[in-house]
Amino acid sequence: MYAGIDVGGTNLKAGVCDANGRLLAVRKAPVPAFTGAEDFARILAELVRDAAGEAGVPLRELEWTGIGIPGAAGDGKVIYTCNIPLTGAPLGELFRRYLDVPVYLGNDADCAAVGEYFCGAGRGTRDFIVITLGTGIGGGLIMNGKVYAGSGMAGEVGHMVIEKDGELCNCGRRGCWEAYASATGLVRMTREMIRQRPESGLAALAAEQGEVTAQTAFLAAARGDAAGEKLRQRYLSYLAAGVTNLVNIFQPQVLALGGGVSNERRELLLEPLQALVEKECYARHGGAMTRIVAAELGNDAGVIGAALLPKAK
Amino acid sequence: MYAGIDVGGTNLKAGVCDANGRLLAVRKAPVPAFTGAEDFARILAELVRDAAGEAGVPLRELEWTGIGIPGAAGDGKVIYTCNIPLTGAPLGELFRRYLDVPVYLGNDADCAAVGEYFCGAGRGTRDFIVITLGTGIGGGLIMNGKVYAGSGMAGEVGHMVIEKDGELCNCGRRGCWEAYASATGLVRMTREMIRQRPESGLAALAAEQGEVTAQTAFLAAARGDAAGEKLRQRYLSYLAAGVTNLVNIFQPQVLALGGGVSNERRELLLEPLQALVEKECYARHGGAMTRIVAAELGNDAGVIGAALLPKAK
Repeated sequence: MYAGIDVGGTNLKAGVCDANGRLLAVRKAPVPAFTGAEDFARILAELVRDAAGEAGVPLRELEWTGIGIPGAAGDGKVIYTCNIPLTGAPLGELFRRYLDVPVYLGNDADCAAVGEYFCGAGRGTRDFIVITLGTGIGGGLIMNGKVYAGSGMAGEVGHMVIEKDGELCNCGRRGCWEAYASATGLVRMTREMIRQRPESGLAALAAEQGEVTAQTAFLAAARGDAAGEKLRQRYLSYLAAGVTNLVNIFQPQVLALGGGVSNERRELLLEPLQALVEKECYARHGGAMTRIVAAELGNDAGVIGAALLPKAK
Repeated sequence: MYAGIDVGGTNLKAGVCDANGRLLAVRKAPVPAFTGAEDFARILAELVRDAAGEAGVPLRELEWTGIGIPGAAGDGKVIYTCNIPLTGAPLGELFRRYLDVPVYLGNDADCAAVGEYFCGAGRGTRDFIVITLGTGIGGGLIMNGKVYAGSGMAGEVGHMVIEKDGELCNCGRRGCWEAYASATGLVRMTREMIRQRPESGLAALAAEQGEVTAQTAFLAAARGDAAGEKLRQRYLSYLAAGVTNLVNIFQPQVLALGGGVSNERRELLLEPLQALVEKECYARHGGAMTRIVAAELGNDAGVIGAALLPKAK
């Protein structure tokens, strides 16, 4: 039995899995006010104890705990986090003071990719990528069956410039893929389109709903609005530019999309995306085509992947 | 002892290496008029026999032959080549009819990366990238100490769009990195600058030399010409855009540049490139910085890497 922890921006989530990655129990808690790295490690250990108790798994049967953090990690230490002040903390060692099992740390997007690789959209592949389209763009890379982390911070695929000197990105660069193809980028482009076409069905829909979200463009397009459709096409062309870059660089068997945007109807998002990538990618000259699919595990990918992380190390 | 073959566009090159990748002998031959895949395999086998003879290595001491081809390969078969009609050929099996040692096939850029990884600029790393700036841009990827080929055609880093809807690339996409940062891209930008600034020292230098090459811009800049210097800065900004993308995606310990352009003086190319990447890359937020260096093995990288390929499989 394996324990996994997903350290999110808002919630902590611990789970216990069997060897097939089946979740036997999950415990959640809000991220606590920070009172030091050791206290934080203690809270994580308690969460694992609770989940194991709920699953009826004796602690001595836990082979390890994997922890996914929003940041970079290596050799039991946190290299960098931006939301929680854990940078430099020997989280593995601190955790073992409260629950003495081997601890493996990894990046949260990497853990999500590991979860999907063993139990979701990546089953049966060897090279596999998960792209999460959310506030930003996250990337998790499985290559030759192993998670790839570089020096701890690899996979920052959202910070790949696709439009030199383009929109300013949160990271400080201009023209990053994330500035266009994240949910945030889509909302920005939707606002721009509403300003340009105040008479459109898109503008009316946003006014009716009282807000602009990453769904507005797709909903307006599905209702047949021309501005909404133009915007959907524009978004797809940016999404495809980055996905095609990744396909040319990695040529994985499967690339899975996660995050809210990936829940749009297949014929509006995944199918036209696959067609755009096939039209532009290098493998059209004779190589194997990457399949683009939706991620399958949703919010559980992170905790399952953390639990299975050592299998992909 | 290991044999390696580098199948180039113009020449075939076979070499015999010891366990440290030291080349004991090399034999070259022009690529012959194509008379079938089996004939081609026979010529390769003879070249290895000749190299082994010259090195004084009995054939029974050859543990294997690695073959680097300009294209994609997998499991002893050629998946795709564009210069030589070998697509689909079981090159490994055909080769063994003439020299019965295990045969490993790989992409030529991957082999160059393997050579540099074991014996050149990548020694001591775990994650390592070689980018070759030539007619196009080649990429070889070593991740977690293994060559990464995806489904056989990975590493097409030159066909990463960095300027959406930009210059038309030979691959059919618009705005690929290769269209700007290859030697060919630099020549194109040099011609454009000469047209815009016919009175410049850059234009005078090109007229004096009777041609525009990838050196023209750097030479004019070194002589203090303003147009040449502006062009050098422009080229560097495109080169840095793609290198920074790769650093954000892979965060390797070292990224090596090969090809003619990489021979420019350090202070004109590698040093400002490192500075631009450090200013923009994601790891500046707290991670380990990738070192950007010149490749070390020159034209021998391919044959040494082919010989050592099974060690990185």
